[in-house]
Amino acid sequence: MNQKKGKQSLEFENPPSILSTASVVGKKEGEGPLRDYFDVIFEDPTLGKESWEEGESELVHQACIKAIEKSGLKKEEIRYVFAGDLLGQLIASTFGLKDMDIPLFGLYGACSTAGEGLALGAMTIAAGYAEQVLTVASSHFGSAEKQFRFPLEYGNQRPLSATWTVTGSGAFILSDKPGDIVIRGITTGTIVDYGVRDSMNMGAAMAPAAAALIYQNLQDFQWKPSDYDRIITGDLGKVGKGILIKLLNDNGYDIMDQHMDCGIEIYDNDVQDTHSGGSGCGCSAVTMAGYVMEKLRTREWNRVLFVPTGALLSTVSFNEGQSVPGIAHGIIIENRGV
Amino acid sequence: MNQKKGKQSLEFENPPSILSTASVVGKKEGEGPLRDYFDVIFEDPTLGKESWEEGESELVHQACIKAIEKSGLKKEEIRYVFAGDLLGQLIASTFGLKDMDIPLFGLYGACSTAGEGLALGAMTIAAGYAEQVLTVASSHFGSAEKQFRFPLEYGNQRPLSATWTVTGSGAFILSDKPGDIVIRGITTGTIVDYGVRDSMNMGAAMAPAAAALIYQNLQDFQWKPSDYDRIITGDLGKVGKGILIKLLNDNGYDIMDQHMDCGIEIYDNDVQDTHSGGSGCGCSAVTMAGYVMEKLRTREWNRVLFVPTGALLSTVSFNEGQSVPGIAHGIIIENRGV
Repeated sequence: MNQKKGKQSLEFENPPSILSTASVVGKKEGEGPLRDYFDVIFEDPTLGKESWEEGESELVHQACIKAIEKSGLKKEEIRYVFAGDLLGQLIASTFGLKDMDIPLFGLYGACSTAGEGLALGAMTIAAGYAEQVLTVASSHFGSAEKQFRFPLEYGNQRPLSATWTVTGSGAFILSDKPGDIVIRGITTGTIVDYGVRDSMNMGAAMAPAAAALIYQNLQDFQWKPSDYDRIITGDLGKVGKGILIKLLNDNGYDIMDQHMDCGIEIYDNDVQDTHSGGSGCGCSAVTMAGYVMEKLRTREWNRVLFVPTGALLSTVSFNEGQSVPGIAHGIIIENRGV
Repeated sequence: MNQKKGKQSLEFENPPSILSTASVVGKKEGEGPLRDYFDVIFEDPTLGKESWEEGESELVHQACIKAIEKSGLKKEEIRYVFAGDLLGQLIASTFGLKDMDIPLFGLYGACSTAGEGLALGAMTIAAGYAEQVLTVASSHFGSAEKQFRFPLEYGNQRPLSATWTVTGSGAFILSDKPGDIVIRGITTGTIVDYGVRDSMNMGAAMAPAAAALIYQNLQDFQWKPSDYDRIITGDLGKVGKGILIKLLNDNGYDIMDQHMDCGIEIYDNDVQDTHSGGSGCGCSAVTMAGYVMEKLRTREWNRVLFVPTGALLSTVSFNEGQSVPGIAHGIIIENRGV
């Protein structure tokens, strides 16, 4: 029996396995510290297409194709795809997936989307609704800056609290077939709003949601931070990390030894000038699909809590004076192999 | 045992019940033929807020509050909310739900979102992951025109194929408690792209997706159109309806006697000058939550297929010359009472 745990969590009786993953990224990510963990690095920011948006769609497409290829499955064996990105009306996902002919659930959780997709995908497998599902999330520096901030040609200055949107897409095949690496459970986030109004400081906007999610996960499962080898946030960056650690400390949990942030790991700020770190749906998706999965495969880590975080804003809400609420989705991933 | 049916469908062993629904709409919808079926009609297009977007968020909030109130539940008894709207980065849902403190899955399926939410909500209940979930979708004429088309102040001419975005939000409480009206199964749509490039003719863009979904539903369940009392599309409008009927005829199904389109029903074009009909996530959501539910309650209809349809475009994808693909989600709703 799948179990409801506490207020916001589920534990699966037969944990879905992560059959394969794929991470495809752009040039800058391919020059960063995690370069050896990505499946494909594209030098051309539009992947030979006409626009950044079409390039991002191609990233989605390539990530899906690669994940399916690595799983050894045929496309027809995948019953659902759960997909999302940052662009208005999810155009990166739509045009990246439109020729795949797989039933689609479109998701928006800002940069938490990789977690939202894994959560719903795992729920779908564990309920017996599908033998395999595909989940995918993407972002692109060019399309995101164009949509959320300034035209790249304008060459605006970036405050040190700003993050750099990752160009990349991470895809995951979840399955009811046994596998070493499984999704044991999930914790689903609520919207958390601390009233942050600085769109150049997404880390501060998202950290309270990450803290609330991690707190709730530990409460719901009655675990300590040290029950995890890593607690992995998506893209808080350096500024957000400090806030997260402090908020959890204030609530009785010290996660300093376990915490890792994909946004901090993916670039080398000293060389790459990325300020607070990487961000975007693609940031946590490619870091999870590449680096974290490898650490789990080699059993350097045996249990991680993956917590992608999203900042819920648009230029419209921001310009109308609204705050930037955050949300986070938590996924418990384990290596259960012998 | 929940059953996978055919290529794209599920049939639930214990069909989740629709415990309550709420439909809140704007002035124009309140002057239309379905006026008596809505729970609340707001005369003020911003509901006393500062902008259309904030007004739409208030619609979402009011629909949720009303649905919870009608269910007799406390907010704390609802484990998840599945929500979406048309605005970039789902700001209507975010700011409408942010104070509710319910774990959230944000969805984007364009105008099919009401169906996507009911599908995932029903899957969640039927799997035992929650006792109750809330699903909600919204749209607003002012915020949608501003985002997708022209400034209202410009007073552009509208071609006869254009639809009128419904100002409204429909909310549904699904439950594992027994109830007369249940979700028996679902059919999940793929992206269908016939290459339509006219953003003023959404009906034509979405009709192929609706036809494919209805065809697949009838195939997966091995049913005839007459096994349904109504097959209810979301917002194809008059132009899309003609295409839908023809496409299904070409594939061996005549649904003329069963077909109804929420977009055609919600306004009286002779009086209200709405051209092809109503559209938007809110169109199918409020028509389902109000009018269709009443027909099911009174057993005038006993089984309907609800098929909200979405046009997958943004102004960016459209201006970059992309086509407008469509998607549809199918929900089988029955009155099983005695």
